[in-house]
Amino acid sequence: MKIGFLVIGSEILDGKITDLNTKALADFLRLQNVDLTLALTVRDQEDSIMNSLEILFKECDVVVTSGGLGPTLDDITKQTLAKFLGRVIAYSPDAEEVALKNYAKFDRPFPGKEHGYCYLPSGFVALNNSTGFAPNLFTQYLDKYLICGPGVPREFKSMLDDHMVPQILSKFRSLEVIESINIRTKKVPEEKIFNEVDKDLWAKLSAYGDVSSLPIFYGVDIGVKLRAHTEAELARKKAAVMKIIEDSPVNEHIWHIGRESLEEVIVKKTKEKNIKFGFAESCTGGLCSHRVTNVSGSSATFMGGVVSYDNSVKEALLEVDKETLRYYGAVSVETAQEMAQGLLKNLNLDLAISITGIAGPAGGSQEKPVGTVCIGVSMKGKTYGEKFKFFGDREQLKNRFSQAALMMLLENVESFA
Amino acid sequence: MKIGFLVIGSEILDGKITDLNTKALADFLRLQNVDLTLALTVRDQEDSIMNSLEILFKECDVVVTSGGLGPTLDDITKQTLAKFLGRVIAYSPDAEEVALKNYAKFDRPFPGKEHGYCYLPSGFVALNNSTGFAPNLFTQYLDKYLICGPGVPREFKSMLDDHMVPQILSKFRSLEVIESINIRTKKVPEEKIFNEVDKDLWAKLSAYGDVSSLPIFYGVDIGVKLRAHTEAELARKKAAVMKIIEDSPVNEHIWHIGRESLEEVIVKKTKEKNIKFGFAESCTGGLCSHRVTNVSGSSATFMGGVVSYDNSVKEALLEVDKETLRYYGAVSVETAQEMAQGLLKNLNLDLAISITGIAGPAGGSQEKPVGTVCIGVSMKGKTYGEKFKFFGDREQLKNRFSQAALMMLLENVESFA
Repeated sequence: MKIGFLVIGSEILDGKITDLNTKALADFLRLQNVDLTLALTVRDQEDSIMNSLEILFKECDVVVTSGGLGPTLDDITKQTLAKFLGRVIAYSPDAEEVALKNYAKFDRPFPGKEHGYCYLPSGFVALNNSTGFAPNLFTQYLDKYLICGPGVPREFKSMLDDHMVPQILSKFRSLEVIESINIRTKKVPEEKIFNEVDKDLWAKLSAYGDVSSLPIFYGVDIGVKLRAHTEAELARKKAAVMKIIEDSPVNEHIWHIGRESLEEVIVKKTKEKNIKFGFAESCTGGLCSHRVTNVSGSSATFMGGVVSYDNSVKEALLEVDKETLRYYGAVSVETAQEMAQGLLKNLNLDLAISITGIAGPAGGSQEKPVGTVCIGVSMKGKTYGEKFKFFGDREQLKNRFSQAALMMLLENVESFA
Repeated sequence: MKIGFLVIGSEILDGKITDLNTKALADFLRLQNVDLTLALTVRDQEDSIMNSLEILFKECDVVVTSGGLGPTLDDITKQTLAKFLGRVIAYSPDAEEVALKNYAKFDRPFPGKEHGYCYLPSGFVALNNSTGFAPNLFTQYLDKYLICGPGVPREFKSMLDDHMVPQILSKFRSLEVIESINIRTKKVPEEKIFNEVDKDLWAKLSAYGDVSSLPIFYGVDIGVKLRAHTEAELARKKAAVMKIIEDSPVNEHIWHIGRESLEEVIVKKTKEKNIKFGFAESCTGGLCSHRVTNVSGSSATFMGGVVSYDNSVKEALLEVDKETLRYYGAVSVETAQEMAQGLLKNLNLDLAISITGIAGPAGGSQEKPVGTVCIGVSMKGKTYGEKFKFFGDREQLKNRFSQAALMMLLENVESFA
């Protein structure tokens, strides 16, 4: 089965927002063992949408669209679909029912059956939208399927959850079983992994599946996509891949095998060991805490922290010595250590991580250029710090700094009983 | 001039990462007064790349690609381009020079001229990559232009900055002048803006340019794209649009006219008024601080804050009364007020904002369901709090909570002299 995706929205090609729906659809399909074949992004313009539909219906068995179902005049998806498929826009009692229900859900007065939400291209089914107003749409075209969701990421996601399997995927169930193994390595660049650490790794893994390599922050994700006709065959292939990895020198650079993010792994492991931790963040400005608290259940183990952006906060809440700040500077291993120590003490933690650095673009010096970061670690009986240097713009540096800090956190979690 | 974009990377269609390069290209082109016409995302597969190139070269004058230039075996962009254009891969002294320079820049030993980086399709020019290793590529094909950048967002961005204008856009300079006016409103849903607050607004604005509407968090961005042949004509149109807005009842819902983010507006205004501020964050877990510190120069006015995820931190660092927590609960206007007051005092701020709520999916109750948030504000002589209810999943709720908190911050900034 080939699935194509059409993202409709001038706001994306104008750079106003980043399209998040392609990732949502890809994620959803992967969990269903289905590949997304192709994605197109176009403006809210009739000719662009028509051309893209032609391309997608030629290439794919299923076409998914997002965007242009809203109530404003730039929302032209329904009219354009009607024109493309040779259908007319008509009042639909089903659509009215969906819209009515959704207005009630949000305690808002229903504007009446003249509203655009109650009109669909003929032959389309109105599907409930559990998180917004506009009905989702579904139709068949020749032997192909079309499903249309809203552009708002939350609504698009609930459309997938609610309708994608029953309306579409159940008709195409493949007999193939697919599994992707994701091997997450750290601190070694892509080049080195495959050219120096283990020259034969790619070829060895390729005997079992499609190998891919994806540089992430400061490491590489090695992917191996296995396909099999039975679960037993899949298990055999999987075991073979795991054996190759275990025997490879790459093994010592692996921090996780799986799709979980670094923060998810941290929450899981700190929970298992009942470790209370927190961050004292300067240059990352709350990003480490934000990432960890994106994980549901993090409150069991993440206690909180201090964003000590200004030096006065380092002194007031983390008890960093004025002399340390003056002599070594805010960006120093010494200050990082005192930040971590102060946090450990004041929040009564098991493990405290601190980050102080220069995210730029201003504030760098010859001695401490933009990209310099010092990370401190403090726990009972042990406090230490490390200095790193990264490249990138302000947001990239904040991301890299936080990645390095979370990685140091994870390394230290391993040392707890 | 029509510009098409080809995003090459299975990792995107597998949902492993979100494509950020479409937004980067769209942003870049907008600043150059050029529209991005169409974007395609494909897997690292020869036939998919070939088909997409055919579509793009048929539709567009300029084709930009990202991805697949790296050193691993799944990087097949160069070979596929050579095949598509009927060229051969050959050693290029220019490419070697670029690669050599980049290895030196990162203090890494150059692997030698056998390395893939030194080979290009014939007729391609190797362009310097100022932030990575792989050379960027440029060629002409018929009367069209092709420029190829790496998939890594940082490297793709620097490719645009370094090469897009000299290699491509200078050849196509249009005589049209374009400007987009972005009108940012708050707290009123899209429907209501155009159907209740001002029914004629869309039609009135359309007389001067292309109108668009984009719901964002808890407001709507209304865009008006003006085109003119002279700067004077553009200025006249712009003035007319501003007059329409000023006279419209929508005016009172506007918090900003421009492309700046809420956090950028906050940093600018707090700097102008020399207001020292900070956040006491519970459920947003550092997100407010993270957003503000993404703005370069925020350190002049954002002092820091406390991530008081656990109640113990609310007591230890924010002096929230144990009794308040017990009687009203952590998610209450009363606790929010004490959090803000405690932060104001302990960090010696002019303005403190606190956020405490339930981001879910667990932790909700009948009385305080998931999505409930209380925001506190404290400044000299005034402390108050408000309760809100939002919809969404955990990450969306954190975003909405932070948006509401930053909006309350901005509203209070207006009250400072």
